[in-house]
Parts: sequence; C-alpha cells; structure tokens
Amino acid sequence: MRYRQRREALPGMPNSKKTPTIQDVARFAKVSTATVSRALSRPERVSEHTRARISEAVRLTGYTLNQAARSLRQKSTRTILVALPDIGNTFFSAILDAIERAAALRGYGVLVVNRLAGDDSGRRLHEYFLSNRADGLLLLDGSLTLEQMLVLTSEPANVPLVMACETLPGAPFHTVRTDNTYAAELATRHLIGLGHRRIGHIRGPTCNVLTLERETGFRAALRASGLPLRPEWLFAGGFEMAHGLAAAEQFVALAEQPGAVFCANDETAIGFMSGLRRHGLECPRDVSVVGFDDLAVAAHIWPPLTTMRQPREALGRLAAEALIELIEGKPGGRMPQHSVLSAELIVRGSTAPAPLMVAPSAAAQ
Amino acid sequence: MRYRQRREALPGMPNSKKTPTIQDVARFAKVSTATVSRALSRPERVSEHTRARISEAVRLTGYTLNQAARSLRQKSTRTILVALPDIGNTFFSAILDAIERAAALRGYGVLVVNRLAGDDSGRRLHEYFLSNRADGLLLLDGSLTLEQMLVLTSEPANVPLVMACETLPGAPFHTVRTDNTYAAELATRHLIGLGHRRIGHIRGPTCNVLTLERETGFRAALRASGLPLRPEWLFAGGFEMAHGLAAAEQFVALAEQPGAVFCANDETAIGFMSGLRRHGLECPRDVSVVGFDDLAVAAHIWPPLTTMRQPREALGRLAAEALIELIEGKPGGRMPQHSVLSAELIVRGSTAPAPLMVAPSAAAQ
Repeated sequence: MRYRQRREALPGMPNSKKTPTIQDVARFAKVSTATVSRALSRPERVSEHTRARISEAVRLTGYTLNQAARSLRQKSTRTILVALPDIGNTFFSAILDAIERAAALRGYGVLVVNRLAGDDSGRRLHEYFLSNRADGLLLLDGSLTLEQMLVLTSEPANVPLVMACETLPGAPFHTVRTDNTYAAELATRHLIGLGHRRIGHIRGPTCNVLTLERETGFRAALRASGLPLRPEWLFAGGFEMAHGLAAAEQFVALAEQPGAVFCANDETAIGFMSGLRRHGLECPRDVSVVGFDDLAVAAHIWPPLTTMRQPREALGRLAAEALIELIEGKPGGRMPQHSVLSAELIVRGSTAPAPLMVAPSAAAQ
Repeated sequence: MRYRQRREALPGMPNSKKTPTIQDVARFAKVSTATVSRALSRPERVSEHTRARISEAVRLTGYTLNQAARSLRQKSTRTILVALPDIGNTFFSAILDAIERAAALRGYGVLVVNRLAGDDSGRRLHEYFLSNRADGLLLLDGSLTLEQMLVLTSEPANVPLVMACETLPGAPFHTVRTDNTYAAELATRHLIGLGHRRIGHIRGPTCNVLTLERETGFRAALRASGLPLRPEWLFAGGFEMAHGLAAAEQFVALAEQPGAVFCANDETAIGFMSGLRRHGLECPRDVSVVGFDDLAVAAHIWPPLTTMRQPREALGRLAAEALIELIEGKPGGRMPQHSVLSAELIVRGSTAPAPLMVAPSAAAQ
C-alpha cells in the first residue's frame, strides 16, 4: 500500500526531548496556567480568542501527546475504544475488521461507540476514560470539536488519541487518512476522460472535512480542464441514500442536466441512481455516475458502480498500530505523525463515454 | 407493532417470589453446590451429562436472573454493552439506533462489541464485566454457548443479560426476536401465490438458529402446498453477498433450475442476483428472488428487492428496555420473558408471476 508519512516540525521546540507541560502551553499562549486548565476542562468559560490561542499553543508544544501523565492512570485495560460516525455505513466495517485484527495481534480488544453527534457525547467519552474503560481512543468520527478532544487528551483523562478518516486539519494528534482531495480529482478526471463536459457533484454533509476535500478535488479537476461548474450542478447532499434520492429530484427538474455526476460517497450514488430510475433516466445511458468508498455492495448493484476504493485495510491497521504505540509510550508516539493513503479508481458499469450528440452543446457553453 | 409476550411457567417454582439460589440449582440437578459452581465457572471440567442437567436446572429455577447478587457489584456505569455478530451487515444499524435511543431515554450510554466468534471472546466479555465496564449485556450474537452465557450471568460477574434476534431456544434469559419461521413461510407463500412451483432456498450459515428457523418455515410452506423440494434446490449459504454469488454459480450449473428462490437474508439475495446477471439470467424474468431483513439498500437496487421487513425499531427498543429493567432490578425482570415480533412482506420488483410455459413442466413433476 502506497502512503507517505511526515512529521510536523514544532516551531520553538525542534526535536525537543523534554516532555511539554501545562506551563509550556501557558508560556506559549501568554496566559496563566489556571487559564489553560480552565480552557481545557471548561472551554465555554473562556473567550473564543483565548481558546484559539491556547489551542494553537497546545498544538505547538505537543502537550496533548504527553505520555508522562498517563502513568498516573489506574491500570491497563488492554482495550481500544473506536468511535465510528455511523455503523450503518458499511465503509466502516472493513476498517473495523482491520483494527480488530491489528489490535488482537497486540493483545488488545476493541469496543465501539457509534455516532458522537449530540451535546453530551464528549462528556460521555470523557467519563469512559475517567472510569478506565479503555486505554486509548481511535476517533473515526470528525464531529468532536478540537476543544472536546483537548479535554480528552489533557489532565485528568490523558487519553491517547489517534484520528482516522475524518481528521481535523492541523489537530495535534496522529492522523491516518485517505488523500480525499486527490482521489476526488481522479474520479472527476475519469469522467472528463470519457468525454463528459457537463459534470455535477453531490456533496457530503455540511461541516464535514471529507465534504470539503472531495469538493475541492472535484473543482480542481474541472478547473484544470477549463470546464464550467454551474451552481445548480452542485447538489446539497449527505452521506446517505436518502440524500442521493433527493438530489435526483433536483436533477430531473433542471433545464440543462449534467451528463455525469461525481457523488461524495457510494451510498449517495446508490440513492441517486435509484432516484433517476424513478424518472425513467438510466445510468450510464443518460447519466454517468461515480461514487466514493467502494462498499461491498457497489460491485453487486446494477449497473455496478464506478468508484474510488479507499484503502480500508491499511487505514484501520495503521491507525490501530499508531494508537497502540501511543498507549504503550513508544518513542515514535510522541510527535504527531500524519499518514496519507491513496485511493484507487475502480471502473465499472455506471460510467460510459459521453454521447456524441452532447459535444456541440458542450462546445457552445 | 404487533407482538406477543409470554412468561414461562417454572415447574416446581410457580410464581415463586423467593430468589433462587445456587442451592436450588443443586437440588434440582441432584448434584452438590460445588459441582454447580464448577460447572458455571469451569464448564470444561464437568461431564457433558452433568452440564446438561445443571443447565436445565438453572433454566428451571431462573437462577441466572437472580438480581440479589448483583448488588455486590462495584457500581453502576450507566452503560449497556451490545454484542453484534457483524457490524458490516446494516441490518444491525437500525436496531442499534433504537437501542441507543431507548438507552438514552433512561440515561444509559451504549458500547458495542463486534463479532464474538473466536475462542477468547467469552473470556474477554467476562473480563469486561469483572472490570465493571458496563451494567448489562444485550446479546444479538448467537455464537456464545449456553455455558459461556451462564458463566457471564453467574457469580462473580452476575451480568444482566438479554438476547435479541439470534436467541437460543430454551435459554433462561429474556429474549426479543422476530418470528423467523412464520416470516419465512410467508415469503415462500408469496412465491407460491405467484404460481411458482419449483422453488429453491439459499440457507444462512450453518449452526445458526436463524438458518434453522428460516429453512423450517420455507419447508413448511412447500409442504402445505404439496410442492417438491429437490436436494439440489437447497443451496449452502451464509449471510454475506459472497455466499449468494457462490449459490448463483451452483444454480446456473443445474440441469433443472428453480424459477424462484427464497434467500436467508438480503445480502445473500443481492449477491445471488448479481451472480445470475453474470450468467445472463435476469431477475425476475428468469428467476424471482425474495430476501429477508429489508436493508435500506433493498429498495434502491435494481430490481428493487422483495423481502421480509423485520421490526428493527421494536426489536431494539424492547430489548434495551428489558435489559434496563433487569439492570435496575425491576420485579418484571425476574422471570424470563420472550417477545416474538412479526415481520412484514414487502413486495417489490424482484418477484413476478411464474411464466405460463413453466406450468406444464411443473405439473409433470
């Protein structure tokens, strides 16, 4: 599996062997240690400006990866807690399989918590670790705020934390993720290569890092080929079939319809194709469709779905290994490492060359 | 939601208010209390015959539902542990949603453990409860043995336990399940009602209670209509798409093919239809297909899948409520209660009337 790794240089603390303390954070942020402590445990009591400065200082000092304090924790549970955004999306089952296998090799069991969205989920996670129910957290759910994560990784919980898939850019944790931007660019280039000129996109949920990255890659591919993107060709979405269905309703109402659509994930693509069918449109005859994920079902629906296959086995394995190194206080665990893996284009029956008759109208745009 | 509930009468202890003790179990099984204790903690050290007698005595006395001993446990965690057989099957996500909602209403969080198969899963579960990581176990995975469950529910762990979906017949626990036998009978009757006479079945995994129940219902419907079941029309299966694909390979090699197939679940049906397509067979033109579960994707594939919709919301909610009553020592929690819910036939495009030309050959059988 191809991937690249980099270590972040920490300005002001290059290659420091010293374990960063709360005093270091306070010095960097130019506030008192009491303020740092308050910002970490009760962020709502600190101004947004101060919180931002402290978050930045935490990031720069690497404070949250401090393993020294973890020795104060009660005892090892040999358990990893994995937070998934939605167990209903089978994308995660292959990742969880890989996590479970990697964890078992090191003698760890895996507990799963589903969907952190909701006011008290950060608090509940915090309680899980204060009551010593797992040794570390593998966060595949990007819905926690940076503050909630910093509360987890600071005193008194000191949770070893690794983010995977839905990572927060710039967060001071190990991350393992797919290069979503580039993968979306490849998916879009595939459609362009088939001669499509009117290409639409169904987005993921708002405020989700994957949505942003995939849309960025989509736009980059269009720009590089000098293709237009009409605002009405960018459909509001989500990651569920219902969102694809809703997008199909908008699609069929358009005066000029795209001849190809890149969907933010496979579930959306499946719902979209189903919705098109209800209006007598056939894929790929009328519209070519590309998904993202390569769910197990993608090869078995009709037409089989062209999609970007995420390296799920590697995502799960690398994330689990990074977390266990962190839990066990290996030297490599100290500095945030970012693994970025590549997705692979899988061409199936849902995409086809643009019909020739489309060319004049596309040329006229 | 329609469902029926019954309480088991306990011979020798009708309506007893007295909390059953290990002495009661020993008396029923006609062994010493030391033997009962050994059978529960180290079942491999007791002969199979003795184990069977003790299991029966445990069931009759209701010993495992004894809540008195639970007061010895350390403290409440306000957490339910849910054991799922396969988070990759989206059948479970709607159930988990309902469990999470019902639990949240009572102030409980939910942790999930995936796939108990494997030698040490019983031991690991036991450790989770001994180290007080949850208050009770909701078991949707039928792969634990009765002995493993009795170890969990006995001293020292005393785990409140409810089984749902994959229940063990006769086990002395609360159970919440779908009437799989009757549902399979309805699914098969639907095919018979369409005029099909040559009907096959793709089974679930071996040694699974759902496999047995669904095959029983399938056979009952054929028998009631006087239809033949050739051995080669009963396909080995599993609950995954790969099993449906493999069954399709066997199917196309048959000299005389069934005109309709009832699949043990939707995943199998999706893989089966995909496999038929690879050989140029179309559903429902050449073969009518019925699934079981009504996964979210079932309505969106082509052709949309006719299937039995399980009452997932009710399954999850009733199971969570029963477990919380057990955890909190409500009087209703003492005696094993068995909720049996009905599944509903959802007719979609994957089933169609048997072609007329089939009738003479079917009549000739």
